[in-house]
Amino acid sequence: MSNYKKLVLAQRPQDGKIGAHLFAQKEQPIPTPGDGEILIKQTYMSLDPAMLGWMSDDRESYIPPVEIGEVMRSSGVGEVVESNHPDFKVGDKVMGMTGWQEYLISDGQGFNKLQAGVSEEMALCVFALPGLTATTGLYNFGKPKEGETLVVTGAAGSVGSIVGQLAKADGLHVVGVVGSDAKADWIVNELGFDGAINYKKDDLAAKLEELTPDKVDVFFENTGGPIQQHIFNRMNAHGRIVVCGMIADYQAEKPSPGPNWIPLIKKRIAIRGFAMPDHWDEIPKILEKLTPYVQQGKIKYRAHTVTGLENAVTGLNMLFEGKNTGKMLLKL
Amino acid sequence: MSNYKKLVLAQRPQDGKIGAHLFAQKEQPIPTPGDGEILIKQTYMSLDPAMLGWMSDDRESYIPPVEIGEVMRSSGVGEVVESNHPDFKVGDKVMGMTGWQEYLISDGQGFNKLQAGVSEEMALCVFALPGLTATTGLYNFGKPKEGETLVVTGAAGSVGSIVGQLAKADGLHVVGVVGSDAKADWIVNELGFDGAINYKKDDLAAKLEELTPDKVDVFFENTGGPIQQHIFNRMNAHGRIVVCGMIADYQAEKPSPGPNWIPLIKKRIAIRGFAMPDHWDEIPKILEKLTPYVQQGKIKYRAHTVTGLENAVTGLNMLFEGKNTGKMLLKL
Repeated sequence: MSNYKKLVLAQRPQDGKIGAHLFAQKEQPIPTPGDGEILIKQTYMSLDPAMLGWMSDDRESYIPPVEIGEVMRSSGVGEVVESNHPDFKVGDKVMGMTGWQEYLISDGQGFNKLQAGVSEEMALCVFALPGLTATTGLYNFGKPKEGETLVVTGAAGSVGSIVGQLAKADGLHVVGVVGSDAKADWIVNELGFDGAINYKKDDLAAKLEELTPDKVDVFFENTGGPIQQHIFNRMNAHGRIVVCGMIADYQAEKPSPGPNWIPLIKKRIAIRGFAMPDHWDEIPKILEKLTPYVQQGKIKYRAHTVTGLENAVTGLNMLFEGKNTGKMLLKL
Repeated sequence: MSNYKKLVLAQRPQDGKIGAHLFAQKEQPIPTPGDGEILIKQTYMSLDPAMLGWMSDDRESYIPPVEIGEVMRSSGVGEVVESNHPDFKVGDKVMGMTGWQEYLISDGQGFNKLQAGVSEEMALCVFALPGLTATTGLYNFGKPKEGETLVVTGAAGSVGSIVGQLAKADGLHVVGVVGSDAKADWIVNELGFDGAINYKKDDLAAKLEELTPDKVDVFFENTGGPIQQHIFNRMNAHGRIVVCGMIADYQAEKPSPGPNWIPLIKKRIAIRGFAMPDHWDEIPKILEKLTPYVQQGKIKYRAHTVTGLENAVTGLNMLFEGKNTGKMLLKL
């Protein structure tokens, strides 16, 4: 019987830095599924900014932290290689919370089979956290209306790119904020956004004004950073701000201050922070909303894939450095 | 025929300062109502922090500014002294947007007669902007639930005192933030709040922790200031923040920064700014909600009254200096 590898959390990050020293690699024999269980060989694993929070000892967060010694948490796709479960057969491709490991045993709870025609990459780039998060945030809280203007930060990212494409499909004027000209080019020329701001080189206020002649009705926030105040300043009355991510601040020693609240009164603005675990029970409804857009070819995606469990940390850090081009995946 | 006085806006405030030089006093003959009109002799006028905004040339605000040369805007109560209107008779007491003037002509639109048993003071302290604002903010956006904890700033103020009493009546644990020991004493010993923080002398973080053992579910913000960040830090998951006023910042040259948005995600918090003009059409429903609390004696109020139109500016400045004890009224 051969061995498999997994990475367990060995210590918690200090000052927001993620390094290989935080994890311990374990090797152990591939286990045998018991009655009602399946053995999954993971093929693709998702790397997400939220992982930094999951590693941290923050009992106030929306899900409990990963414990020291526990396999690092992640979602992923795998193939059923042994099954003692009536609903799964060998060869089934399944998606669920897999963890940073090559093999795992599951009783099937929380694992869903991939639909016909859905590749492993599409499953993780669209029908997993990115698409669920984009759809929930946009429709539950952003409440987009045809003809309105939406600005999304992290617009070339896994969530932002879907938010913008959904809003475009719904007839909004959509502007994305990105960190490179290549990303700007991709969201405008490939995804069909109406405009892009490169926060690293553009004059933020001037460019935003130019690209949002009717100001901003929906602000979908994935990053934080100085652009936040500029978009906030440009909100229309009755605007909606959806706070989904603040990746620019997750590693900051001291998070940067936010906007003063006076404009919230003057413009009667709603701000809503959210996280997907509150919405697990809505997933069937969310997928019902999202799937037609995908079927009509309105949602393009791209994956940025690194290979091998030993590159998980490298891949994760690429997210925080903005070096990924597309949804960060790890191929096993 | 005798004359009456009115104050018109002569210039807009600079650096948030309100002074007598901003207004010009006009004297003119008391007008005669035409067909379908009434002549109202104003008896009590309301002074509100929002007036600073109304004087300023801020086209983005929720209602247009008062124009230069126009009578300063305010709500008030008066007596009908002449009537050519079938629905009003001489002696009726009416409430509506009266302006800074001793007499006015109206076609009755927007004026409501005071209910039997409702004094002029009660009308302006409870059934006018303060009570409507408190009820709308608390129930539309605060969504209080029995057993939860609510913290309200400006707790001895016209809106805050009603918010806290409504929440107490609904079975919440209620803490108020005030600017003097006398106000702290009033909200705890007269209004029945569970605790008070004097932001001018208490150790804010320590006192807040002591008074909110179960942390904070609803934060009703009337003031801004350093206490904001402390209350924000203490929000529970799924907390609601209602932003109604930021009086500490209205006169600031540069408004102070707000909290970073990361906790909005971690705790899935909703923040909502609002202003009453969006809710005029809901007033019957709002009064239906508020009135039973008043009838059951659950809403105490106190007015702080100055006398004579020439003291309007003094009275208004008392609000910004926190020197008023109760809803600021001007008796004519």
